[in-house]
Amino acid sequence: DPSLKVFTLNSNRKLADEIAEHIGTPLGECTVKQFSDGEIQINIEESVRGHDVYVLQSTSSPVNQHIMELLIMIDALKRASARSINIVMPYYGYARQDRKARSREPITSKLVADLLETAGANRVITLDLHAPQIQGFFNVPIDHLQGVPILSDYFKEKGLEDIIIVSPDHGGVTRARKMADRLKAPIGIIDKRRPRPNVAEVMNVVGNIEGKTAILIDDIIDTAGTITLAANELIEKGAKEVYACCTHPVLSHPAVERINNSQIKELVVTNSIPLAEDKQSEKVKELSVAPLIGEAIIRVHELQSVSILFD
Amino acid sequence: DPSLKVFTLNSNRKLADEIAEHIGTPLGECTVKQFSDGEIQINIEESVRGHDVYVLQSTSSPVNQHIMELLIMIDALKRASARSINIVMPYYGYARQDRKARSREPITSKLVADLLETAGANRVITLDLHAPQIQGFFNVPIDHLQGVPILSDYFKEKGLEDIIIVSPDHGGVTRARKMADRLKAPIGIIDKRRPRPNVAEVMNVVGNIEGKTAILIDDIIDTAGTITLAANELIEKGAKEVYACCTHPVLSHPAVERINNSQIKELVVTNSIPLAEDKQSEKVKELSVAPLIGEAIIRVHELQSVSILFD
Ligand SMILES: Nc1ncnc2c1ncn2[C@@H]1O[C@H](COP(=O)(O)O)[C@@H](O)[C@H]1O
Ligand SMILES: Nc1ncnc2c1ncn2[C@@H]1O[C@H](COP(=O)(O)O)[C@@H](O)[C@H]1O
Repeated sequence: DPSLKVFTLNSNRKLADEIAEHIGTPLGECTVKQFSDGEIQINIEESVRGHDVYVLQSTSSPVNQHIMELLIMIDALKRASARSINIVMPYYGYARQDRKARSREPITSKLVADLLETAGANRVITLDLHAPQIQGFFNVPIDHLQGVPILSDYFKEKGLEDIIIVSPDHGGVTRARKMADRLKAPIGIIDKRRPRPNVAEVMNVVGNIEGKTAILIDDIIDTAGTITLAANELIEKGAKEVYACCTHPVLSHPAVERINNSQIKELVVTNSIPLAEDKQSEKVKELSVAPLIGEAIIRVHELQSVSILFD
Repeated sequence: DPSLKVFTLNSNRKLADEIAEHIGTPLGECTVKQFSDGEIQINIEESVRGHDVYVLQSTSSPVNQHIMELLIMIDALKRASARSINIVMPYYGYARQDRKARSREPITSKLVADLLETAGANRVITLDLHAPQIQGFFNVPIDHLQGVPILSDYFKEKGLEDIIIVSPDHGGVTRARKMADRLKAPIGIIDKRRPRPNVAEVMNVVGNIEGKTAILIDDIIDTAGTITLAANELIEKGAKEVYACCTHPVLSHPAVERINNSQIKELVVTNSIPLAEDKQSEKVKELSVAPLIGEAIIRVHELQSVSILFD
């Protein structure tokens, strides 16, 4: 379709190439550099007048740089008369600042939504938001894709037997349930409680894991403290082996060391955030969301909405 | 005044201390840190409900980090029911992206203005905008302070004789004229022309500099290419000695080396941007804008507007 153009910024160039290949369109030409003082300089090298433009950017680390690149790109596209500006944001940074947990806290997820709209975004395609409520922070349409099918298919193909899908906390039960349905497996939950203030947390496993292959699932793995403790607890309580998976491998230091030293046999992630060289490990397996996102772009562009298909 | 609170973010903590001392109020308590993944975490540690809050932040390097700190702080203050949120931004980053010089360029100065308003800023106090038109990018009141008096007073006290104020380009003549008026001196202009395309620029000095002490003035000195070439040209054309001054010492690499190796006798700057350790030099003299900004805050707070005083 000649009216469709896909551009990428700096967060995830490899994924962008894969998506462009899936769609069968070359990436739009655009240079994204810095002036000597660190200010971002964007030059869009081809006309976008009257086109539906899709811009790929995960707001992963360095998050503030990536957000500003995106806002400046949106501004440039708007002024260059793009017909629509569609943001493809596999990882939505600041998603954990989604409510005031204490007084005088910001709600940065909402701020980011407002900034994107102010700059001129007309639509956002994203993947596994930390809290689905973030969809309501936008006034423009938002397509919310899910990583569970990709992660589930991988484990299905592996042909594991006698499995149980385990959520590392109560907040993740819905996600674990979805995976369990796809794999026709039961679910378990890690139940953390602090019996009294200032007393160490105790971990309790809800569900029968004795002799089973446990698959822990979360949306984000950041420093990997929770997930590695959970994995070790599952083994201690009698699980045969433990896999872990997540959509967004933030993997801040010391995540990789923790995973390497844990009872986790394999950690399965997607490329919503690219694995920097120092985050690669034999234990970490990366699956691509390019077909999922590529299809979403094609269908959004065809139908102007995939909400029916992906909700 | 108990309804006034001054907070600072990370760009310019020393200036904040000086301003607070000038006003005679302690800085508000607020921690500005990063989570392990680099996301900004702000905790305002005291009530701001019903207060007029002034937040100090120059959007100097790292500019994207400093902009996001500011936006998140504004969001937190808004949600904490501050009565008014007044941004004190001695250096306004992205001020040189103030127009579309080529097709498909962003106008990032306007974007930043929109972002600040979207977050919830009610007023902006700033200093020597690269282009005064940027004031028109805002719908909220903006107080535009000037560095020329501070720079001029320094040279006046030095008691230099037979001086000429030189603008390094045609765009800076108004600024040079203001300084010349204060010092009762004539002005000169460096006139750069490219006789034909692809032929080296020639520098021409307009004004009689023979045997004079020249003072070059600019708003921003970034890599210092222009200013050091101009200084060397002035000496070559017969100036006795050359000083240089600017409000905003961006001083990106290799500015300091260039200044040290140039004919500039002294470079006088303000602390609108703090001089990082690797930007200090015997040749660079820093003047404080704390009294200027402190007065502005006091008067804005008293009169709700200093436009009459500072225009
Ligand atoms: N980037 C981050 N890294 C670690 N913790 C965060 C981050 N952003 C927000 N949080 C905290 O994570 C908590 C929300 O996480 P959750 O309960 O999983 O939704 C809040 O207490 C936030 O203060
Ligand atoms: N941070 C920056 N560093 C160097 N040049 C810049 C920067 N931001 C914008 N520019 C360029 O500077 C020019 C405007 O400068 P001026 O003509 O002095 O207003 C434009 O061509 C911009 O592309």
